[in-house]
Amino acid sequence: MFKDFKLIDERPVAIQVKDYMKRLIIKGALQAGQKLPSTRELGGLLKVSRNTVMAVYADLEADGFVYVLQGKGSYVAALADNASAAAPSWQMDWTARLNGNARLAEELDLMKHGIRADRGTISFTSIAPDEKLFDLDNVKRAFLDRMSVEGNVLLNYGYAKGYKPLMDYLLRYMDHKGVDLKGKDILITNGFTEGFDIVLSALSRPGGSVICENPTHHTALKNLKLHGFDITGIAMERDGIHLGELEQALAQRAYDCAYFVPSYHNPTGIVMSPEKRLALMKLMERYQIPIIEDGFNEELRYSGSHVSPLIAAAGQGNNVVYIGSFSKVLFPGLRVGWVLADRELIYYLESVKRARSIHTSTLDQSILYQYLYNGNLEKYLKKARAEYKRKYEWTMHCCREHIPYTSLSGDGGLHLFVTFPEGFSTRELLDACRKQGVIFTPGDIFFTDGGGQNTMRIGFSRVSDEDIGRGIRMIGGTAKQMMS
Amino acid sequence: MFKDFKLIDERPVAIQVKDYMKRLIIKGALQAGQKLPSTRELGGLLKVSRNTVMAVYADLEADGFVYVLQGKGSYVAALADNASAAAPSWQMDWTARLNGNARLAEELDLMKHGIRADRGTISFTSIAPDEKLFDLDNVKRAFLDRMSVEGNVLLNYGYAKGYKPLMDYLLRYMDHKGVDLKGKDILITNGFTEGFDIVLSALSRPGGSVICENPTHHTALKNLKLHGFDITGIAMERDGIHLGELEQALAQRAYDCAYFVPSYHNPTGIVMSPEKRLALMKLMERYQIPIIEDGFNEELRYSGSHVSPLIAAAGQGNNVVYIGSFSKVLFPGLRVGWVLADRELIYYLESVKRARSIHTSTLDQSILYQYLYNGNLEKYLKKARAEYKRKYEWTMHCCREHIPYTSLSGDGGLHLFVTFPEGFSTRELLDACRKQGVIFTPGDIFFTDGGGQNTMRIGFSRVSDEDIGRGIRMIGGTAKQMMS
Repeated sequence: MFKDFKLIDERPVAIQVKDYMKRLIIKGALQAGQKLPSTRELGGLLKVSRNTVMAVYADLEADGFVYVLQGKGSYVAALADNASAAAPSWQMDWTARLNGNARLAEELDLMKHGIRADRGTISFTSIAPDEKLFDLDNVKRAFLDRMSVEGNVLLNYGYAKGYKPLMDYLLRYMDHKGVDLKGKDILITNGFTEGFDIVLSALSRPGGSVICENPTHHTALKNLKLHGFDITGIAMERDGIHLGELEQALAQRAYDCAYFVPSYHNPTGIVMSPEKRLALMKLMERYQIPIIEDGFNEELRYSGSHVSPLIAAAGQGNNVVYIGSFSKVLFPGLRVGWVLADRELIYYLESVKRARSIHTSTLDQSILYQYLYNGNLEKYLKKARAEYKRKYEWTMHCCREHIPYTSLSGDGGLHLFVTFPEGFSTRELLDACRKQGVIFTPGDIFFTDGGGQNTMRIGFSRVSDEDIGRGIRMIGGTAKQMMS
Repeated sequence: MFKDFKLIDERPVAIQVKDYMKRLIIKGALQAGQKLPSTRELGGLLKVSRNTVMAVYADLEADGFVYVLQGKGSYVAALADNASAAAPSWQMDWTARLNGNARLAEELDLMKHGIRADRGTISFTSIAPDEKLFDLDNVKRAFLDRMSVEGNVLLNYGYAKGYKPLMDYLLRYMDHKGVDLKGKDILITNGFTEGFDIVLSALSRPGGSVICENPTHHTALKNLKLHGFDITGIAMERDGIHLGELEQALAQRAYDCAYFVPSYHNPTGIVMSPEKRLALMKLMERYQIPIIEDGFNEELRYSGSHVSPLIAAAGQGNNVVYIGSFSKVLFPGLRVGWVLADRELIYYLESVKRARSIHTSTLDQSILYQYLYNGNLEKYLKKARAEYKRKYEWTMHCCREHIPYTSLSGDGGLHLFVTFPEGFSTRELLDACRKQGVIFTPGDIFFTDGGGQNTMRIGFSRVSDEDIGRGIRMIGGTAKQMMS
């Protein structure tokens, strides 16, 4: 006994010894009534100081694991419950108890059934930001600044609606995007996904239906399906959703709501033109359909003029629910997003949020707030945009050079979308490329109607210039071979 | 114009000037084609340096808000979309679109319909930890330690199951509580509430039923109702749930699962005795009912011997789903909890979690991990337990001295539970006390069956000794008056 004890670095020695002894007692290796080695003896066996062992024994006694007989030594206490020995142990079939929701969540879970990168593979599957760009020092400073202002407050319970300074900051931020805030309110969520999920869980109903771009963001598709929505996808044109098809669909049946990604649309990378935005808003008014707007990557504009979100175009109207996040622009690890919408709606969503997770991490919110307040976003965006723009242009160049596409889209953002001739299979292309160490996201997962077998998404944000060059050449070469 | 500009402290001046000018342009106060003041002039008007204005104009130009005519000056650009002016603005009735889930969440939202404290009120409603005990320096150190190890990783996307070092730490932690980890796995969630909600959303079904202690944790009751469960509550005895009544209920009908809070039960503060735990486990095995165990405040033992959680008593059995959190012990602001359960079940819960919120804040998880790894929990618990124990004994003393109760329970934790004679109304007592500046939580909100009108919960963790003394005396005096 005592031979398997191994000290690890940095963690206090006394804690390690206590944990070790506690485990021996709980697991029954040291039995009730058994005499423990003297402090000197155990110190020698574990190669720790006698003082440490004395402190540990005192602690174990205080915790009820050990008792002391004066002048005799320390003994293992009888644990109040050695229930583990006596309680019946039985197995049940959990999968048989799972409902359809859990099964569907698993079935639609791309992280489980998607494409995995082996080590050394050039992977174009990610559209997360490049962590090499993160300005860690400013994040550290934001944390320390905020902790020194109100550390105690940050670590205790916060409010379901959000951390007040951040809420106020984001309201101003949206005001600066031209949003009329009158009658509107904000709810902070754990990123876009929770915001979207909360909105859907408040609006879903049996036989619910939604209309959206086709293709579209696959996590949104997943959550719409999980909430039982029937999904109608409308084709994309070079400047955004096909208005003719949209109107036709709207004329045919009623929809509970629409879901649109007007900027750097995922996966096509298309920015909806200002004219189309206006026409879209008119159409939605005519059919009285509320819009859930995904503010995805709005900040990643590399050139051209300012384009306002749909919720700004709605003016004093309350028909747009805007969901924003800095995840793709700043730090996805900070799980912070926001829902900006009609005040009455937010009042209910706040209760849904509270029932789900009490509130979003106050530390995440306060760090983001202080980081923004310190003026870091502007500085960071300048640097990040320059780098992503360079990569974007290089990836565009490589695709034009090597890939036999029929169309290539992407007005900015962190990814491009490639369409091959009808009949071409990007799944087959993926199989062939993967063997050569290159992967991408096959486009079919973004389609609402089983289409898109001839499409793929190329995320370039986390791939080096050299790998972008090599990878795209390889994909292009393989595609050409398959075509011939 | 330019007269309403006001500089605020610490935020970079250039950002403030840029935000201000952007807003004037977006809001139309500065019109397309309008010439902007010279940099010298604007600097004078806003009382900032000319260099600042030059930098701001350059930025606004890069962002497409301003254009420059060489030798003439800077002009407001025509925004691509002054859609806000042209788009139709319409109002819809969001409340008419809300489903039953959103309405019920609002209806059951205690923060909206519960007792609010005015300033200066002595409030016994909170059972959150006392933030004055928080060891901020250790939290700061944990953050800086972890950021220096892998700051870039922490700020990018993490995994739905959790942050690996924390998962491993918590598995060891549960192992030390005597849990047999074979066949089990862990999922990190945004605190207890999200964990519970995820479990329920995977197990709920039309006509689902659950059995639990009566009274019990009101957030749990809320979420059970939101998931459509029919709830059967079993009365409490001094040492935990009434086994006779439990067995009777189990014999009468089938239940999907049970929800138990064996330690420092909320609201009664009762710790289930080891004998009762064992008998409970046998009963649940006989009726083959899985248990959701709420590990609430397990760490806040002030005296007596170690009591293992039910999941430890289950040994190799897979019938207990344990949900843990340090929220009430350490820092509620860090939204971190965990579900420890059968591996197969966790596999599905992971997908549910991913669909809801991608993953829990990595920063929260990594700070908690490093804080625990650095050995701070033990040190903190020693200090916190000593302080809470002192307060607990003082509150007990005051209650015994002043309150005309028929029973008083609370074996530790951060609250006591008081029962008055049948027919007494703690809602009326609350109304009377409130006018005198003292509030508490009426016990009826914890009851599954509309009972408990003669009960109340007294949370003492955040009330000063003096206020505890004054408040309890006041409650007691008022109760005696009402009784006579």
